[in-house]
Amino acid sequence: MAAYVVSRRLSSGSAAPSHLAGALRYAACWRSYSTGFREERDTFGPILVPSDRLWGAQTQRSLQNFDIGGERERMPEPIVRAFGVLKKCVAKVNLEYGLDPSIGEAIMQAAQEVAEGKLNDHFPLVIWQTGSGTQSNMNANEVIANRAAEILGRKRGEKFVHPNDHVNRSQSSNDTFPTVMHIAAAMEINSRLLPSLGNLHSSLHSKSIEFKDIVKIGRTHTQDATPLTLGQEFSGYSTQVKYGIDRVNCTLPRMYQLAQGGTAVGTGLNTKKGFDVKIAAAVAEETSLPFITAENKFEALAAHDAFVETSGALNTVATSLMKIANDIRFLGSGPRCGLGELILPENEPGSSIMPGKVNPTQCEALTMVCARVMGNHVAVTVGGSNGHFELNVFKPMIASGLLQSLRLLGDASSSFDKNCVHGIQANRERISKLLHESLMLVTSLNPKIGYDNAAAVAKKAHKEGSTLKEAALKLGVLTSEEFDNLVVPEKMIGPSD
Amino acid sequence: MAAYVVSRRLSSGSAAPSHLAGALRYAACWRSYSTGFREERDTFGPILVPSDRLWGAQTQRSLQNFDIGGERERMPEPIVRAFGVLKKCVAKVNLEYGLDPSIGEAIMQAAQEVAEGKLNDHFPLVIWQTGSGTQSNMNANEVIANRAAEILGRKRGEKFVHPNDHVNRSQSSNDTFPTVMHIAAAMEINSRLLPSLGNLHSSLHSKSIEFKDIVKIGRTHTQDATPLTLGQEFSGYSTQVKYGIDRVNCTLPRMYQLAQGGTAVGTGLNTKKGFDVKIAAAVAEETSLPFITAENKFEALAAHDAFVETSGALNTVATSLMKIANDIRFLGSGPRCGLGELILPENEPGSSIMPGKVNPTQCEALTMVCARVMGNHVAVTVGGSNGHFELNVFKPMIASGLLQSLRLLGDASSSFDKNCVHGIQANRERISKLLHESLMLVTSLNPKIGYDNAAAVAKKAHKEGSTLKEAALKLGVLTSEEFDNLVVPEKMIGPSD
Amino acid sequence: MAAYVVSRRLSSGSAAPSHLAGALRYAACWRSYSTGFREERDTFGPILVPSDRLWGAQTQRSLQNFDIGGERERMPEPIVRAFGVLKKCVAKVNLEYGLDPSIGEAIMQAAQEVAEGKLNDHFPLVIWQTGSGTQSNMNANEVIANRAAEILGRKRGEKFVHPNDHVNRSQSSNDTFPTVMHIAAAMEINSRLLPSLGNLHSSLHSKSIEFKDIVKIGRTHTQDATPLTLGQEFSGYSTQVKYGIDRVNCTLPRMYQLAQGGTAVGTGLNTKKGFDVKIAAAVAEETSLPFITAENKFEALAAHDAFVETSGALNTVATSLMKIANDIRFLGSGPRCGLGELILPENEPGSSIMPGKVNPTQCEALTMVCARVMGNHVAVTVGGSNGHFELNVFKPMIASGLLQSLRLLGDASSSFDKNCVHGIQANRERISKLLHESLMLVTSLNPKIGYDNAAAVAKKAHKEGSTLKEAALKLGVLTSEEFDNLVVPEKMIGPSD
Amino acid sequence: MAAYVVSRRLSSGSAAPSHLAGALRYAACWRSYSTGFREERDTFGPILVPSDRLWGAQTQRSLQNFDIGGERERMPEPIVRAFGVLKKCVAKVNLEYGLDPSIGEAIMQAAQEVAEGKLNDHFPLVIWQTGSGTQSNMNANEVIANRAAEILGRKRGEKFVHPNDHVNRSQSSNDTFPTVMHIAAAMEINSRLLPSLGNLHSSLHSKSIEFKDIVKIGRTHTQDATPLTLGQEFSGYSTQVKYGIDRVNCTLPRMYQLAQGGTAVGTGLNTKKGFDVKIAAAVAEETSLPFITAENKFEALAAHDAFVETSGALNTVATSLMKIANDIRFLGSGPRCGLGELILPENEPGSSIMPGKVNPTQCEALTMVCARVMGNHVAVTVGGSNGHFELNVFKPMIASGLLQSLRLLGDASSSFDKNCVHGIQANRERISKLLHESLMLVTSLNPKIGYDNAAAVAKKAHKEGSTLKEAALKLGVLTSEEFDNLVVPEKMIGPSD
Repeated sequence: MAAYVVSRRLSSGSAAPSHLAGALRYAACWRSYSTGFREERDTFGPILVPSDRLWGAQTQRSLQNFDIGGERERMPEPIVRAFGVLKKCVAKVNLEYGLDPSIGEAIMQAAQEVAEGKLNDHFPLVIWQTGSGTQSNMNANEVIANRAAEILGRKRGEKFVHPNDHVNRSQSSNDTFPTVMHIAAAMEINSRLLPSLGNLHSSLHSKSIEFKDIVKIGRTHTQDATPLTLGQEFSGYSTQVKYGIDRVNCTLPRMYQLAQGGTAVGTGLNTKKGFDVKIAAAVAEETSLPFITAENKFEALAAHDAFVETSGALNTVATSLMKIANDIRFLGSGPRCGLGELILPENEPGSSIMPGKVNPTQCEALTMVCARVMGNHVAVTVGGSNGHFELNVFKPMIASGLLQSLRLLGDASSSFDKNCVHGIQANRERISKLLHESLMLVTSLNPKIGYDNAAAVAKKAHKEGSTLKEAALKLGVLTSEEFDNLVVPEKMIGPSD
Repeated sequence: MAAYVVSRRLSSGSAAPSHLAGALRYAACWRSYSTGFREERDTFGPILVPSDRLWGAQTQRSLQNFDIGGERERMPEPIVRAFGVLKKCVAKVNLEYGLDPSIGEAIMQAAQEVAEGKLNDHFPLVIWQTGSGTQSNMNANEVIANRAAEILGRKRGEKFVHPNDHVNRSQSSNDTFPTVMHIAAAMEINSRLLPSLGNLHSSLHSKSIEFKDIVKIGRTHTQDATPLTLGQEFSGYSTQVKYGIDRVNCTLPRMYQLAQGGTAVGTGLNTKKGFDVKIAAAVAEETSLPFITAENKFEALAAHDAFVETSGALNTVATSLMKIANDIRFLGSGPRCGLGELILPENEPGSSIMPGKVNPTQCEALTMVCARVMGNHVAVTVGGSNGHFELNVFKPMIASGLLQSLRLLGDASSSFDKNCVHGIQANRERISKLLHESLMLVTSLNPKIGYDNAAAVAKKAHKEGSTLKEAALKLGVLTSEEFDNLVVPEKMIGPSD
Repeated sequence: MAAYVVSRRLSSGSAAPSHLAGALRYAACWRSYSTGFREERDTFGPILVPSDRLWGAQTQRSLQNFDIGGERERMPEPIVRAFGVLKKCVAKVNLEYGLDPSIGEAIMQAAQEVAEGKLNDHFPLVIWQTGSGTQSNMNANEVIANRAAEILGRKRGEKFVHPNDHVNRSQSSNDTFPTVMHIAAAMEINSRLLPSLGNLHSSLHSKSIEFKDIVKIGRTHTQDATPLTLGQEFSGYSTQVKYGIDRVNCTLPRMYQLAQGGTAVGTGLNTKKGFDVKIAAAVAEETSLPFITAENKFEALAAHDAFVETSGALNTVATSLMKIANDIRFLGSGPRCGLGELILPENEPGSSIMPGKVNPTQCEALTMVCARVMGNHVAVTVGGSNGHFELNVFKPMIASGLLQSLRLLGDASSSFDKNCVHGIQANRERISKLLHESLMLVTSLNPKIGYDNAAAVAKKAHKEGSTLKEAALKLGVLTSEEFDNLVVPEKMIGPSD
Repeated sequence: MAAYVVSRRLSSGSAAPSHLAGALRYAACWRSYSTGFREERDTFGPILVPSDRLWGAQTQRSLQNFDIGGERERMPEPIVRAFGVLKKCVAKVNLEYGLDPSIGEAIMQAAQEVAEGKLNDHFPLVIWQTGSGTQSNMNANEVIANRAAEILGRKRGEKFVHPNDHVNRSQSSNDTFPTVMHIAAAMEINSRLLPSLGNLHSSLHSKSIEFKDIVKIGRTHTQDATPLTLGQEFSGYSTQVKYGIDRVNCTLPRMYQLAQGGTAVGTGLNTKKGFDVKIAAAVAEETSLPFITAENKFEALAAHDAFVETSGALNTVATSLMKIANDIRFLGSGPRCGLGELILPENEPGSSIMPGKVNPTQCEALTMVCARVMGNHVAVTVGGSNGHFELNVFKPMIASGLLQSLRLLGDASSSFDKNCVHGIQANRERISKLLHESLMLVTSLNPKIGYDNAAAVAKKAHKEGSTLKEAALKLGVLTSEEFDNLVVPEKMIGPSD
């Protein structure tokens, strides 16, 4: 075994011991990692790889050269799966362009396993690697090549199916990685985020109907204002979420554009005419999403404006959800010393000291997610603005930032919907009490007694801590009957005829 | 004069001297400010106002209570002008609902003057006031009321035309300010930003055609890569700008929704049915932009997601322009020790020490603007997420942030277009020299001599500092004629047939 | 006059008419701008300049080439004044190195006028110019040169005092601009921000003492919690501000480092040994602040980490102030339907519809400022991270971002202090009512009746809407006397002995 | 089994089946999760928990109620370990205050296992839970209680050691979670970030010495400028990193303040006087870091300004590292068509298409990390600014954001140091060639032939593409000998005597 040094480059044999140690350290951090090593090779020479893993030399080098952040920072699973989808589609198209059929089909089968998440454990690389994602592309190529070889009865590491010549045929990391970014994001948007937002919208809309007859005090500047219904208040929330869905949908036309076919710098060198269109069609068929080939491949490699744009839409959604969750927790504050207009579901004990304490925990999780999404947006923006020449090299960071935002917003919206919004009840008694104590009802006296008299009534009530009616009667500006006829909150919730 | 104290509130007469000092200090900071004061009144009592200014008591109070940032932080002019547009339209609609015709027409005339910017000097309030913009709404009401009174032959301060009862009739600051925010932003987008981006796109597109036959080295990871044409490179830029225009356009449907008619909390209390629709139609006619009434007024007052969304679009545009300007300055770097592929227009002397030094100053101004736009986006996002209940009270900050971004992006794009992009020339000699020195042309040998031989050629050339051809001939892998036939950059700039 | 074309460069004479139009347009936008033009020259040739302005050719070129943002985007006044300070100090030191005494003293006198803000109108350039600030440095050089010439009885434009050879002697824009950035920021920190924060801290601290005996309900998760005193609550705020002051102070050692003496790239070419130390000493004397020469001039030109750092401190201060202002407006919410524990000063009328409505407007102005500061911080960070090689060229944007944050935070803290914190009163009745209704007082029964019985009491009271005492007596877990002895909020506000 | 419903709350038995499904789904996502379930209880009733896990009822409820983000979003390991440290210390102090010795010591032993990371698999909760981190505190309490019970020979779930009464004694989540945040961050700063930055500083400093005699062209505005040494250039980088270390150190005094002892709202209810000081001392001893008790516990619970501050320091470090890594990749660009002044280590193959292509991958990983850190900073800031009243409820998000930044910056700096900076070599030939071609050397002719003649020389050379010397001789402004005596870059790299 001594001959097969785990070296960073062929020429630096003397560095072997420390790198072997590196490999062993990695071995240690992977639970049932490996019982041995096999040799894999690339143009830098041979390198040891754990026997029970499908990856090859370039993946192994990246593991050793980028010891940043640990397991939790691995490339997001949607990217890994999208590599499966893409490599399957490319093999399918390459069959039309002369790829050996048995190899092509084995690649398709292996790629399908990647697409299904069955080989996740063979994708150990972290986000913090080369900025083109080349190493993760090679990880996919190596895993699929070795797996395809096994399917064909060959051994790992022999390159019977070649990671570059077969699996990566007609591709460059520079078009492949942007393509999987778009596939992964579009799938997460469609399968996770939009359904979750859709459900949340439905629930908020249902609440706005359920609460349509509950008249309550309005609040502006956090101060008492004229009344509205609780249903109207919730209609604002449901509108925000509806527009959020519109905003995300607006970004999809550019997200559905795939870079594949641009190869190294966008020109499409080493592809045949029409290859790009066929790939996009194959991915569209595979995913049932309307992918098309990017109109301009130079833009598609050199910039990730589409990701910055979608991240911007998520940032707006986060802004909306932060507002909604804040309102709900403040309206549900109490039980005795807060606003207390809403009764939120009690999902778990609050404090170990204070019995009966229940907290708006779903609001808290959601607002924390919103803050995270705003932060991710800045990271994606910074990365997006720092591309140079023919390639943006902040790709894995940009991809992981957007995918985290998509996942968290989707999951947290869903959790908030199920564990909070569904169960919200109106505290009708409290709402009514606050409404009728409010001094702002005085506004409806304006037409009868004039602004100045109305002001005098409100100020007297405020000063003396009395009701408006008491103040009005004391001032003698109208009778008890007149007051009762005029001060009717139910008539203050819309324009007049 | 002693009776007319400049007081913060009626009850604190003892504070008068210091407040008089405050008023005088203000007086001092306005050049030819005033030769005297007149008394104006509101529900807090009388207050002194400079005689030669049209504003009233509430504006004066705000001036004294919010001494933040100085003149430069005044409410942006597009907001002031939009107030003119809106107040004119509301007066017009109010005429249908019984507003006294002579007063209504005087208001319309005064408002028109505001819309034209003629009364800008009468809008002294800063952004950093109440978060609803109420004080600027009252500033508009007071100025228009006093000006309308003058038009009708009355004196300032007499309230013959009343700021609230006449000018602000059927309105609340809470629907008025969001409405002017949308009017101002939509006008800036249509009259400033989109035309500037359109011109920039045209210029970049023209350059991509002008440069379509210039084959040059590509660069990925900032390292040499396979070739492309300079025209292709510029086509990436022009596509970025084109998509940027699309992105901004995508946000307009929500920007065209006006809050007017929601009044205090979104219910429309104190308006008549149909008022909101008529106002939107009047504003649309006045501005020739397709404004409509907001579908949900609660959302329109309580959130400014539309501003966060548009700011997100500008953030993406800034990301694109940062990339383009960076590329252009690096490609134009030199004159001797940089990449030197582009010759940028020389607009002004560079250094006082170094003769002949000319700097890519337009790129610098543009990238600084882009950074600012990214920062404004975060400010707008933070403000947008912090609304509570029926009213977001970060309105002036949100408005000024987006409007600054619109103005700066529009102006800087225009300046960059005219003073830089127009005049860019290709340094054909330098481009050709770099292209033919590049080792990456070796890629086209792959089909003939195989990847391994090609690699050997490249490595030998790199090691010896020779040309690829010299290395290839030394290695004997092909003849001079074969080399010349294969290594043709012009054939490497697209897919093959 | 026709011979003296206002041209962008000498060779483009045919463009003259449009540029003359440009100059005239500028003329129009400056109120009492000019009655004529004189010719000034630089290495690009002659150019027309308004007769009544002191600036020269390079300033005029910048005005025409950077038509971005309008007057409001002019270089911040603290930068202009710092140029005055610096140019005066450099002239003083240059006198030691052989500068002609009469010229040197005229420069010092002219520079003093700039330092005092007397020549502000002669600094028309916007932030969005060259990223090194060279044009503003030349603006200072040109204005001082022309003014010094006048002092010496010479005419403008004759260069008897030369902007480069005399005023800019031994300097480069590349060390001058960073130096004025540091001078301006350090002066604003010391003269504006720290005093304002200090006053705010004092006021909050005084309130914490004033309110030290007022026991009130605590709130965690926005829900009722165990009690504390209002004084304790305010002690948290005053501690936040105190630490904010510490944080800003921590950044000063690096802010006091001056780049002057590094000249073009940090090497100090064209200066004499010791020049840098003398300049820093002169600036320190002039400003009474402990400036020193930067330990490493390469860092001082190529990066603005000191600005990013200070901006980070302001970002933390903004975070603190946002929290404090939010708490105060929520605690002051009402008057009837909010928490109502604090009574905030009433500074101006609230709504035109709703009599008696007063809003927490100072909190709103302050929180808007905080959002702006957070956004500025991102802009400064993006600019700071995008320096290349020997010079960061986002200088004017970075400078203006930090200076705006300093100004706004200082002014808004001061306004908030004077117009809000000073006048805050506790609503003792309301506080007491809420405190005694709270179910969380049950916590003090734990030792006597056990957690489970205590929980039963709380839940019964919650369910039945009764007091804790009623519930406890009904459940028969203790006597009325026992309850009164145990449930004493005043004993729950600190650790026990 | 039917009796032991896995329910969200006791009263909603009908919801059991779906929740059982929820539990089973969790089971499925944990590889060798469990072969059965046991019952645990809290005040909401019984709930099923996987038999082979140590956690209890509240952890299980959180798992089911917060299905957000998946495994990768689990609470960061440093937080889990810090819980071990803290709970051990508290038990130790509680022994002084009467905690049963055998239980206390079992808790200490169990907590030690948590501190060592041995029980990581028993901490399944995600960041996106209650904003106080209560559920993670209870997770720690439950795991330690069950483990301590086992140590004492008792069974899981029996509460022989009680999670609240014993493990959480004298604590609240509200002081515990902030305390572990500070412990975790301070440990990561001291054990990971500062050593990595220290090493990076050393390497850069060594390079600045190694390269001290290599004179090269300077670049400002990305354009050729006057010369400096490569060592001087690297001294700028090493200074940036040195100041970065200073910046992080500046924040530690506030990071070392612990909230423990504040309990629920900062008052210290349910603790004895002196408890807080003893805890801080115990933690200081355990960690060998100078922790002290927080001066004001109200601030310590209600705000996380210390985290915002430290995040700001990391943001500045990220700004510095972004600049350094960008410079290094641009200076190392090539091999033929870039600046090519540096030769970067070749760690892995570049492109599969382009033989010999090696990319600055370590720079890419580092700059991606920097962008992420900037984004995290915004997230932390947003969370930090949104605290209300006595408790900030963005704690887990804030904690995880800062801890990720610390980890990534530390690891990436280390990787960049080892895999890039160490191996950087100067391309002396290329550096020399560029230097001597530069037109900016003309600057040294100024004293001899005057600025105008020097400018003429530079312009002629630029126009004709000749050397400065050729141009000078053609113009006849000096002799060959004179030129050679004057144009000596080595004399241009510092102030003159």
